[in-house]
Amino acid sequence: MTQSSGRPLRVAMIGYGFMGAAHSVGWRQAPRVFDLPEAVELAVVVGRNEQAVARAAAKWGWAEHATDWREVIARDDIDLVDIVTPGDSHAEIAIAALDAGKHVLCEKPLANSVEEAEAMAAAAERAAERGVRAMVGFTYRRVPAVSLLQDLIARGTIGEVRQVRAAYRQDWLVDPSVPLGWRLQKEHAGSGALGDIGAHIVDLTQFVTGERVTRVSGTVETIIRQRPVLGERSGFTGSATGELGEVTVDDAAIFTGRLDGGALVSFEATRFATGRKNALTIEVSGTDGALAFDLERLNELRYYDRTAPAELQGFTTILVTEPEHPYVSAWWPPGHMLGYEHGFSHQVVDFVTAIAHGTELDPTFADGLAVQRVLAAVEESAAKDSAWVAVDAPVAVESAIPANV
Amino acid sequence: MTQSSGRPLRVAMIGYGFMGAAHSVGWRQAPRVFDLPEAVELAVVVGRNEQAVARAAAKWGWAEHATDWREVIARDDIDLVDIVTPGDSHAEIAIAALDAGKHVLCEKPLANSVEEAEAMAAAAERAAERGVRAMVGFTYRRVPAVSLLQDLIARGTIGEVRQVRAAYRQDWLVDPSVPLGWRLQKEHAGSGALGDIGAHIVDLTQFVTGERVTRVSGTVETIIRQRPVLGERSGFTGSATGELGEVTVDDAAIFTGRLDGGALVSFEATRFATGRKNALTIEVSGTDGALAFDLERLNELRYYDRTAPAELQGFTTILVTEPEHPYVSAWWPPGHMLGYEHGFSHQVVDFVTAIAHGTELDPTFADGLAVQRVLAAVEESAAKDSAWVAVDAPVAVESAIPANV
Amino acid sequence: MTQSSGRPLRVAMIGYGFMGAAHSVGWRQAPRVFDLPEAVELAVVVGRNEQAVARAAAKWGWAEHATDWREVIARDDIDLVDIVTPGDSHAEIAIAALDAGKHVLCEKPLANSVEEAEAMAAAAERAAERGVRAMVGFTYRRVPAVSLLQDLIARGTIGEVRQVRAAYRQDWLVDPSVPLGWRLQKEHAGSGALGDIGAHIVDLTQFVTGERVTRVSGTVETIIRQRPVLGERSGFTGSATGELGEVTVDDAAIFTGRLDGGALVSFEATRFATGRKNALTIEVSGTDGALAFDLERLNELRYYDRTAPAELQGFTTILVTEPEHPYVSAWWPPGHMLGYEHGFSHQVVDFVTAIAHGTELDPTFADGLAVQRVLAAVEESAAKDSAWVAVDAPVAVESAIPANV
Amino acid sequence: MTQSSGRPLRVAMIGYGFMGAAHSVGWRQAPRVFDLPEAVELAVVVGRNEQAVARAAAKWGWAEHATDWREVIARDDIDLVDIVTPGDSHAEIAIAALDAGKHVLCEKPLANSVEEAEAMAAAAERAAERGVRAMVGFTYRRVPAVSLLQDLIARGTIGEVRQVRAAYRQDWLVDPSVPLGWRLQKEHAGSGALGDIGAHIVDLTQFVTGERVTRVSGTVETIIRQRPVLGERSGFTGSATGELGEVTVDDAAIFTGRLDGGALVSFEATRFATGRKNALTIEVSGTDGALAFDLERLNELRYYDRTAPAELQGFTTILVTEPEHPYVSAWWPPGHMLGYEHGFSHQVVDFVTAIAHGTELDPTFADGLAVQRVLAAVEESAAKDSAWVAVDAPVAVESAIPANV
Repeated sequence: MTQSSGRPLRVAMIGYGFMGAAHSVGWRQAPRVFDLPEAVELAVVVGRNEQAVARAAAKWGWAEHATDWREVIARDDIDLVDIVTPGDSHAEIAIAALDAGKHVLCEKPLANSVEEAEAMAAAAERAAERGVRAMVGFTYRRVPAVSLLQDLIARGTIGEVRQVRAAYRQDWLVDPSVPLGWRLQKEHAGSGALGDIGAHIVDLTQFVTGERVTRVSGTVETIIRQRPVLGERSGFTGSATGELGEVTVDDAAIFTGRLDGGALVSFEATRFATGRKNALTIEVSGTDGALAFDLERLNELRYYDRTAPAELQGFTTILVTEPEHPYVSAWWPPGHMLGYEHGFSHQVVDFVTAIAHGTELDPTFADGLAVQRVLAAVEESAAKDSAWVAVDAPVAVESAIPANV
Repeated sequence: MTQSSGRPLRVAMIGYGFMGAAHSVGWRQAPRVFDLPEAVELAVVVGRNEQAVARAAAKWGWAEHATDWREVIARDDIDLVDIVTPGDSHAEIAIAALDAGKHVLCEKPLANSVEEAEAMAAAAERAAERGVRAMVGFTYRRVPAVSLLQDLIARGTIGEVRQVRAAYRQDWLVDPSVPLGWRLQKEHAGSGALGDIGAHIVDLTQFVTGERVTRVSGTVETIIRQRPVLGERSGFTGSATGELGEVTVDDAAIFTGRLDGGALVSFEATRFATGRKNALTIEVSGTDGALAFDLERLNELRYYDRTAPAELQGFTTILVTEPEHPYVSAWWPPGHMLGYEHGFSHQVVDFVTAIAHGTELDPTFADGLAVQRVLAAVEESAAKDSAWVAVDAPVAVESAIPANV
Repeated sequence: MTQSSGRPLRVAMIGYGFMGAAHSVGWRQAPRVFDLPEAVELAVVVGRNEQAVARAAAKWGWAEHATDWREVIARDDIDLVDIVTPGDSHAEIAIAALDAGKHVLCEKPLANSVEEAEAMAAAAERAAERGVRAMVGFTYRRVPAVSLLQDLIARGTIGEVRQVRAAYRQDWLVDPSVPLGWRLQKEHAGSGALGDIGAHIVDLTQFVTGERVTRVSGTVETIIRQRPVLGERSGFTGSATGELGEVTVDDAAIFTGRLDGGALVSFEATRFATGRKNALTIEVSGTDGALAFDLERLNELRYYDRTAPAELQGFTTILVTEPEHPYVSAWWPPGHMLGYEHGFSHQVVDFVTAIAHGTELDPTFADGLAVQRVLAAVEESAAKDSAWVAVDAPVAVESAIPANV
Repeated sequence: MTQSSGRPLRVAMIGYGFMGAAHSVGWRQAPRVFDLPEAVELAVVVGRNEQAVARAAAKWGWAEHATDWREVIARDDIDLVDIVTPGDSHAEIAIAALDAGKHVLCEKPLANSVEEAEAMAAAAERAAERGVRAMVGFTYRRVPAVSLLQDLIARGTIGEVRQVRAAYRQDWLVDPSVPLGWRLQKEHAGSGALGDIGAHIVDLTQFVTGERVTRVSGTVETIIRQRPVLGERSGFTGSATGELGEVTVDDAAIFTGRLDGGALVSFEATRFATGRKNALTIEVSGTDGALAFDLERLNELRYYDRTAPAELQGFTTILVTEPEHPYVSAWWPPGHMLGYEHGFSHQVVDFVTAIAHGTELDPTFADGLAVQRVLAAVEESAAKDSAWVAVDAPVAVESAIPANV
């Protein structure tokens, strides 16, 4: 139940927002539901506001709290750093932690820029040589239905992939009175719907097909260009007067991608799909069948078998709650639903197992970088009148490390 | 394209209500879509109100109209009588037509009482000896998805039938201001939800399983017992004063049946299922799979295959619009929907084919009688505190003929 | 019941393929279900193969057949010409018929090129001045659920349109053994998925939003580039030897459009969506709600009301079979499904009514031209590395008439 | 954060099967997600097999383990006893715990007999006088969609309840090789589908309508009457020889109930619904609308509003993941799914809150007893040829206490 050192794997979590809550559930639940090869300890949660982070520690079950992530990373008793801060701090923290020999789980998106992501991937590669692991938190890969989808494609169940249709649609920006929070400002969020939810559908497409998006053509759009300023968070001063500020990120991104196997993918990421709350949908069409998933019905996978007798063909709604399905046997009997946060437990299970066994684990920082490159190419295409843009081939990572890291 | 006599099959339709419209579509469309072994002529439509029946004839494409069904039945140039009058006149017309040597298609329910139905079945049996055919209009049997359902069970696709769940739910009586029409009066309608829509689920259950309901236990219920009187139709005189009259038929019937193969069936027929417009649903559970149908999505059949690999099991939604499916190849390409009235064309196709080829054809009057006996047994059970009641074994039909026929 | 001339409207149908069957149902059924202001006669069906067209006439109920459409158009007793030939003959026939003073219903796509479509629109405009009507057969506009969708948007039910997502997905080309029929050759079909099914989603988008697509960026793709040659139909001679020929049209088209109101539309038309048979789907997101339609469940419309109490919001599945819904009251009671061909009856009803009353009627040839221009712009964009291309503003139609017409 | 005593609420859980895992999640998660008025400690888990219970304690996070529940109940430092043993030991443990002044949460069914349940309800009533609370674990009441359903009915949203349709369908007994476990033997399990899953639909019906089932007529059925004997668990000795033993509980129960408000309820509980894994469905039809729930889509509630404009009526699928919905705001953003075990956290939240505030809390032991009485009446009806049987009016609880308690 312990590392070779004889003690549990001690985790420090940097950040304590909504994602901190979700990651905390993962760390707490995984060892109580699955049989982990290492014991796990929720050692310390780190944030700048001491009062708030102390509350988070008490609430979520972390033994300690701290305000200086550098000090925490320097501690000998910390084995693993889990980063759930906003994207603009991921690179600095992750690289420092990896260089300090800590395993790193970094929430998506890997970074706010390709350059940062490249530096992080390089750091992960250096760390790997010393047996230190890095993983990016594309948690939806570990929804059982998605994991099954990937596995079925890998086994050839639907034959060769011919087309993919992927969308992530939400509607929280339809209301024009939604204020100009940090997520709507480029300097903080990097990008809008594209980077936040578009990242998920790019990663899932690459994950389930086992292919990379090599070229893209796309459009990004800011539908409501001005929103009410929020005094303290925005840096503006006129909130009390009803002043409006500029939205500097996209509300929607529509793009087409080419996989290295040749198939076309239609992507749509939007925060303006009225009535759609969290509608990540992906459908993969192959020569022998198709598979379709909808995050709003995350316990279901739809499978079409083109090789079945003609009169019996149709989409089969598989309730992915059987013991034969990925991750499920540790949970409940057939027909008992899993929810959003179960993916975070599965992520912990797989990460801890990889650490204990010294095995490879997806999604790597290189996978996160690959997503980042696709998103950057979409933005470049959008700026070039939607011309097709090649996604950069991964350059040698050494040369990609910024000098100042 | 003609009978041995060298002329088309000439049809007389008795009645011209809503069902007359639907039957007319069937007669008009079938020869224009399918290849019938006999030509068909819409010869005459019969009704008591000359002006109204003349309008119906012109509108629906019948060559003539008439007001006396006895005269029409006596005509040598009429080959087939299609009865779409209310149930209380079915027996008299059908028996007369059969005895006159006319083929008869009689809309369901076969009759308002078991006695009448027995007399009709006896007449049909006598007529059959002379090559005259009789059929009862349980049209839903000829919805392609239902026909496929039946066929799959017959071929053993779901193994042995273990349980059936059947319901027909509508909501048009939820509104207490719905007046006391003839359908809510026992002397005219025979029964309420039980005879009108309960008849369909009993017939479909017997059809798709190939078994008979042998015993029943049930409850019938009148939920709103008084409704506004309609002057002219009800026989009451006080309509102008807002007088209320007694509803004398059931609004809902819930009953359990035993099939001769041993399986239990849960039945529910109700006009009080708020929001359900025409929700005939049937699900058959077998040892190797299950099949489910919903009339509100009549182009779909759901199939569960218990013999599939465990991880891929689920209900498959078959879009029953492929050329391999019953009746479909004569219509449109895959994915093009069929509607309610297509069943009436299919009924014509099968009936005309059976007449031309001299072959047997379901549902016979004996099938209609079997349904009637089940419904009567439900009413008897309801009257006996829901005690189980055996459905009468078909007695020798000769002895069942009332003396006055 | 008649024209001012005192006689029924006499129809000639040119062509007798699958669309001829569907149009024939419309002409036969409409007067028997709806109250038309003019009587209608199925006068003559025209085709080059006399034997085949004679069969079609007999089968579908046309009084006569003929082989020369020019002669038919010249007949004084013909009032209306219904064109269901392949797209490459639409312009010639339609212009001749309009110039001869016949009302024209022309199946979509209006033509195989923008130039032809422009000439047709000009002819329609000239004809309109003489009271002669022209209509293009985008029949899906007259599916009751689609008509309701349009009406709700027009009434402001979902507020201002913010985004549209439209797709038409089929799978009949997934099988590489599907031969190289005329639909896969540019010289006959004009284009592939784009012109055949993409045309529908462009038209529906413009119809339901009441806006025009003004700019597009897109990609077209031929996924399987060679297919088995069919001797007689393809012009190749090597079919017996298993020779392969080039597919010269697109299998899939993915494009983004901008509406004149500013909203973005994502379009996808493909014949490679494994398991999707006829999946025309459209979802319109507005400031106050959303509406979604799926042709594979054509009796349903999904409506999201953003103004409802927060706890009760969700997509409402409206069963579009109530008497309050467009076209429905002439058919069956609530909950009784309509099918694919009902749209053809509705088209006849509206066309005949417009002719009788001298009123305007959509979709006009100008609407068909507008679709053609969008499709042409998509092809142009695809040829220009997906650059955004403006859809030609409708030029003065006079100047657009080719000299040789 | 603590009781008046200044220390956390210390919990002992008796039993450690599947339900022990689920309850442990509830105790662990609730304080880490919700703001509880009392701190909670997972003090001790109790089981007869010391090794196994020690493993469970370590796995699930209980501080101690023990083998003698009587000793644990006697401890002063235990405040609350959570009973997750099989039903035949509920009465003894619960009554002892309540009499010892411990709050008790007892998993459903409350007991295996009405007599035991009556004694438990009496004990709960005695305990209540001393401020000690008792609750029965009908956890499905605390699925957010179910809680919303109940609340909407209570607020009159669907008007007066006119009909209810409730079913709980599973399929794990379709396979005849499923062995004769304790759940299939009356002496251990009390009853079969009726008591296990039928109990849930009876409770939910009573909960959401706010009414009691007063009379029932029903049938219970054992479909496969002999199954392979399991040596150690069954008490039989012939397992190695493939001996078959008698199934002594029901596989399916179909019954009709009458609510005290007059409405009829159709109930079906079966373990033979092929393809249905955990299909608890309930639909309540009212004068102004309807509400429908399906446990296999537990984040959704379907609502029909009869008062909406006619053309917009339909079932609205509410995604019950909004902050306005019960329990949801403590979890994730809109559109993020909850799962099966969340109900166990909600149960803990409500129970701890009721204890801290001294407020009433459903479902009480009296509610559990009411369910038991309905089930007993169903069995009695089944034994009396499905005659209607009155559900015993709750007698004065004092007189119901067996002498030996």
